[in-house]
Amino acid sequence: MGYPIDDELKVKEMDITSLSSPRHHTEKLSYVHKVGVPPKQNLLTEFTATVKETFFADDPLRPFKNQPRLKKFILFLQAIFPILEWGKDYNLTKFKGDLIAGLTIASLCIPQDIGYAKLANLEPQYGLYSSFVPPLIYAFMGSSRDIAIGPVAVVSLLLGTLLQSEIDPAYKDGYKRLAFTATFFAGITQFTLGFLRLGFLIDFLSHAAIVGFMAGAAITIALQQLKGFLGIRNFTKKTDIVSVMHSVWGSVHHGWNWQTVVIGASFLGFLLFAKFIGKKNKKFFWVPAIAPIISVILSTFFVYITHAEKDGVQIVRHLEKGINPPSVNEIYFTGDYLVKGLRIGIVVGMVALTEAVAIGRTFASMKDYQVDGNKEMVALGAMNIVGSMTSCYVATGSFSRSAVNYMAGCQTTVSNIVMSFVIFLTLKFFMPLFKYTPNAILSSIIISAVISLIDFKAAILIWKIDKFDFVACMGAFIGVIFSSVEMGLLIAVSISFAKILLQVTRPRTAILGRLPRTTVYRNIQQYPDATKIPGVLVIRVDSAIYFSNSNYIKERILRWLTDEEEQMKAKYLPRIQFLIVEMSPVTDIDTSGIHALEELYRSLQKRNVQLVLANPGRVVMDKLHASKFADLISEDNIFLTVADAVLTYAPKIVEEQP
Amino acid sequence: MGYPIDDELKVKEMDITSLSSPRHHTEKLSYVHKVGVPPKQNLLTEFTATVKETFFADDPLRPFKNQPRLKKFILFLQAIFPILEWGKDYNLTKFKGDLIAGLTIASLCIPQDIGYAKLANLEPQYGLYSSFVPPLIYAFMGSSRDIAIGPVAVVSLLLGTLLQSEIDPAYKDGYKRLAFTATFFAGITQFTLGFLRLGFLIDFLSHAAIVGFMAGAAITIALQQLKGFLGIRNFTKKTDIVSVMHSVWGSVHHGWNWQTVVIGASFLGFLLFAKFIGKKNKKFFWVPAIAPIISVILSTFFVYITHAEKDGVQIVRHLEKGINPPSVNEIYFTGDYLVKGLRIGIVVGMVALTEAVAIGRTFASMKDYQVDGNKEMVALGAMNIVGSMTSCYVATGSFSRSAVNYMAGCQTTVSNIVMSFVIFLTLKFFMPLFKYTPNAILSSIIISAVISLIDFKAAILIWKIDKFDFVACMGAFIGVIFSSVEMGLLIAVSISFAKILLQVTRPRTAILGRLPRTTVYRNIQQYPDATKIPGVLVIRVDSAIYFSNSNYIKERILRWLTDEEEQMKAKYLPRIQFLIVEMSPVTDIDTSGIHALEELYRSLQKRNVQLVLANPGRVVMDKLHASKFADLISEDNIFLTVADAVLTYAPKIVEEQP
Repeated sequence: MGYPIDDELKVKEMDITSLSSPRHHTEKLSYVHKVGVPPKQNLLTEFTATVKETFFADDPLRPFKNQPRLKKFILFLQAIFPILEWGKDYNLTKFKGDLIAGLTIASLCIPQDIGYAKLANLEPQYGLYSSFVPPLIYAFMGSSRDIAIGPVAVVSLLLGTLLQSEIDPAYKDGYKRLAFTATFFAGITQFTLGFLRLGFLIDFLSHAAIVGFMAGAAITIALQQLKGFLGIRNFTKKTDIVSVMHSVWGSVHHGWNWQTVVIGASFLGFLLFAKFIGKKNKKFFWVPAIAPIISVILSTFFVYITHAEKDGVQIVRHLEKGINPPSVNEIYFTGDYLVKGLRIGIVVGMVALTEAVAIGRTFASMKDYQVDGNKEMVALGAMNIVGSMTSCYVATGSFSRSAVNYMAGCQTTVSNIVMSFVIFLTLKFFMPLFKYTPNAILSSIIISAVISLIDFKAAILIWKIDKFDFVACMGAFIGVIFSSVEMGLLIAVSISFAKILLQVTRPRTAILGRLPRTTVYRNIQQYPDATKIPGVLVIRVDSAIYFSNSNYIKERILRWLTDEEEQMKAKYLPRIQFLIVEMSPVTDIDTSGIHALEELYRSLQKRNVQLVLANPGRVVMDKLHASKFADLISEDNIFLTVADAVLTYAPKIVEEQP
Repeated sequence: MGYPIDDELKVKEMDITSLSSPRHHTEKLSYVHKVGVPPKQNLLTEFTATVKETFFADDPLRPFKNQPRLKKFILFLQAIFPILEWGKDYNLTKFKGDLIAGLTIASLCIPQDIGYAKLANLEPQYGLYSSFVPPLIYAFMGSSRDIAIGPVAVVSLLLGTLLQSEIDPAYKDGYKRLAFTATFFAGITQFTLGFLRLGFLIDFLSHAAIVGFMAGAAITIALQQLKGFLGIRNFTKKTDIVSVMHSVWGSVHHGWNWQTVVIGASFLGFLLFAKFIGKKNKKFFWVPAIAPIISVILSTFFVYITHAEKDGVQIVRHLEKGINPPSVNEIYFTGDYLVKGLRIGIVVGMVALTEAVAIGRTFASMKDYQVDGNKEMVALGAMNIVGSMTSCYVATGSFSRSAVNYMAGCQTTVSNIVMSFVIFLTLKFFMPLFKYTPNAILSSIIISAVISLIDFKAAILIWKIDKFDFVACMGAFIGVIFSSVEMGLLIAVSISFAKILLQVTRPRTAILGRLPRTTVYRNIQQYPDATKIPGVLVIRVDSAIYFSNSNYIKERILRWLTDEEEQMKAKYLPRIQFLIVEMSPVTDIDTSGIHALEELYRSLQKRNVQLVLANPGRVVMDKLHASKFADLISEDNIFLTVADAVLTYAPKIVEEQP
């Protein structure tokens, strides 16, 4: 539009004055911007853009652009093995940080690993195996600098529950083989999701649901520990709180082992006190980090000299010495157990992924570096696939150990290598030392570890922010503690989906009014001083108009109109003659949506109300034209802003007024 | 804000002039509207509002408000039996319209019913039974004035396929009983959905998917008719096009029955010609409506006098005389078949519902009256429940007969009563007359009826408007014709869901620029003349920020920023210092969304960019406060409009520029 620049101010002045003095409105209109119709896009371009936005939203190929072939190959290798990239700048200062962090998390993970293996109904050494191989693989392929890899409580529990519903843990060999099979397929699931760039699927487990699920799992795990903690021999295999409490009270008359209780309780007190100190002063983060290994050493020494095991204190007894034996031949690649392993693997793999990716993202945003979710999944998948072939069960990122790793000043994944090396030494030489370790101490360590999974503050915040999220959170929590881990997971996913469906079937709509002394139109419920224009109804639709909501939107708009007309009648104001639909938030429309608009238009015609659209977006404008709806209501009834539309039609109302 | 009214104009002038002359911006700011924070809502109010909007979106209780108790009871009865309401104004003129329409659709439905019953592998009289009782029930309870109730082609085919995969139709008694069981549960499904106000669930089958599904079903049904049309004796039980064509060509050498083909082809020609006339001139709508019954009469008479049945022309032969026998005792209320019947009933009931509600809505919007979807479902459910007890199979609204009903000038559901009465007379007295009716003529009638289900125009329009919808359409179509009706349905529902998931995981974002000579900010891709403000990046997020997309949105915004910064660098423009997120389309945010914003804020802090929000809505503003995010970024960084935000920060950019 070719107006001389000097006119600019004058035009603007008119824009405004015309609002209050209708006689100007015709001059005004000639300067109005029309709604843009972008050039028709090529079908292929459009398709490519959608695919790119869906699967390559993070634009992973950006650095590859305009590079010679050799450079591309190097970049490709670096993309798979990030160690090749950051390894070039690795130096002694960084190593010092990694060494200290690695030693700290190693001391924390040894006792935890032994305990977690028991949650998965596996022998203690499998926990240590899983802290040896997977961290090594991850160190070469992973892109998070702070994550600490190994077995974690929730995944171990989930794996254990799912496995034992298929096969009795007493049948050790078969159980172990199914565990490796599940681990293999968990790895395959993770690898495939990452490779196919379907990483966004894990976003369907909402943060709120995870908070509830984790808290429930923590309580379940803690309750399971009562077995070792109280020295109960006949303990239920179910994990729900009712069965467990039944087991606990049912065993009272057999007598709990008081020596066990004393050892367990005193060290639990010690561990919780250490945790408290670490929380009080960030400088003492290493106190809770090394407390578990100190407890193990002290209690083992104590049992050894007092021979408390003869008084009924249960001890670890036997631990296989030596590093991971190969287990490729133990994976079920055929038969019934293949399918069972696959199913368990998919569930466990997804949950493990969710945890690892959440950790990766949290620490990356704290240090402000990027973690590529999909690449991370490929790394985690690869590590579990290799793990399943070297007697490991599902490993992932541990929240508590990653936090310690971070606070101990880790710089790169080398801290995982250090930890892995310490585990190697332990497996090779120190295993017999754990013979006299009392089970109670392992239970205390697990209890003190999982307690931090219960995040009260987050739950309260969720309650404050979003009630629906809170329902998801509590649903998952209650499902886990009163039924089972799987049930909690199922509830969490179902509620999350229900929320999405609610969002797409019942979008919001709002009546807009003009803010005094502006041309801005806003929701009258949010801005009580916004005023409606007599004879004009402005409705904003707050969602894309799709098949799932098109009927609702149509009917909702008509209901607003009916309500409004009743009010107008009661107040003897002119009847509604123009219905302006503010389309700014309507980002897309499909064939059902167009149909709904057509039906709306016809219904309004019958009621002698003119339908007017304001500010339809690019995609919507395209489709309004493709469907000829723009011709139906006429181009002149599509405006750039609500203000423009009101300016055009408000004067016409006045004429009709008696 | 208490400015004297006379100042209003002056203020507005300043609003604008200040945009071009930054020295004014301080004065300007003092008049800026703040983003409204609505009063905190009571939890119960909020919950009630959500429930009301979800389940009672159409406000069905509105007329009940402020009425005496007796009036309420009458209104309640009228709500269940709309006939009590419109019956008061019923008169002879209306009856004349209904009589003609009723007779017309009766003549159309008799031959169709006999054919459709065969699609469901039932004996012909069951089609007529289903056109006798259900329309009567519907007439009292239904709220659509134009719908014509009875068996329809697609539902008959679907029921037939599902039933025969569970039980061999040759085992007549069991098959029939399972059919009644499925009908009973189809009715229960429909009734329950309506009663629990879950009617919106059927919206999940998108219009596009229905177009494809219907076209596929039409072709499948037409292919099935080749059996009767060509007089083939050994015909496949599968419905996919490959099996059917195999059957057809495989029977060539046995010889098709030429007499059958001649009868079928000539009458098909006649029917199609009648259809053509009816389409050419709306005045002759009755020609295609009575053509089928004329064909039946003529062909029956012809076979009777020539005894063509002795030359291999297959005829209907035996038809049970008399009205519907009771069938309550035949429904399986226990055992295996209960579950099977339930499953089939749910699927068939939903599909039948989709068709009936679509018809109801279409004609209601043509005559501009309201059809309450949920009440309609209750009526349809009740009619099928009663039907299942009186030897009927699933009935629903027929598109072709409803259209004829409408064009013949029906006024109320009385036309269904008239039709029902004609069927009653037929069952009672005229059944033996159909003995010599050739099967070929029934096939011709069905072919000519289903052809109109293939809606080329709609498919082309879908292609033009929305490519994704077209994929759903073709997926359903191909699924039906190459596999089975259920597969087509499954594909249709899956693609529809995939679309919803895509919508909620990958919302659009856009860079905004200022339209010249305005304070309006729009997508620069839609409005090429919109200009960016140096040092400021304005991004609009086009969706609620939920757990399913919060990470994507955060990362997408950061990617926009990176892209933009590269461009700025290349052009030696000042670096981006303020990132304004236009939140108008963000209708809601959950805990994950708040987390994403916090992470975004922190990432931006590290990059020395200030995060600014423009126009967050009511709900979002609430949650920003509840989560203290508003305090984190400071209230001053939340503006009413993008223009306000730019006015505030644009001058600060200039100062930093070298």
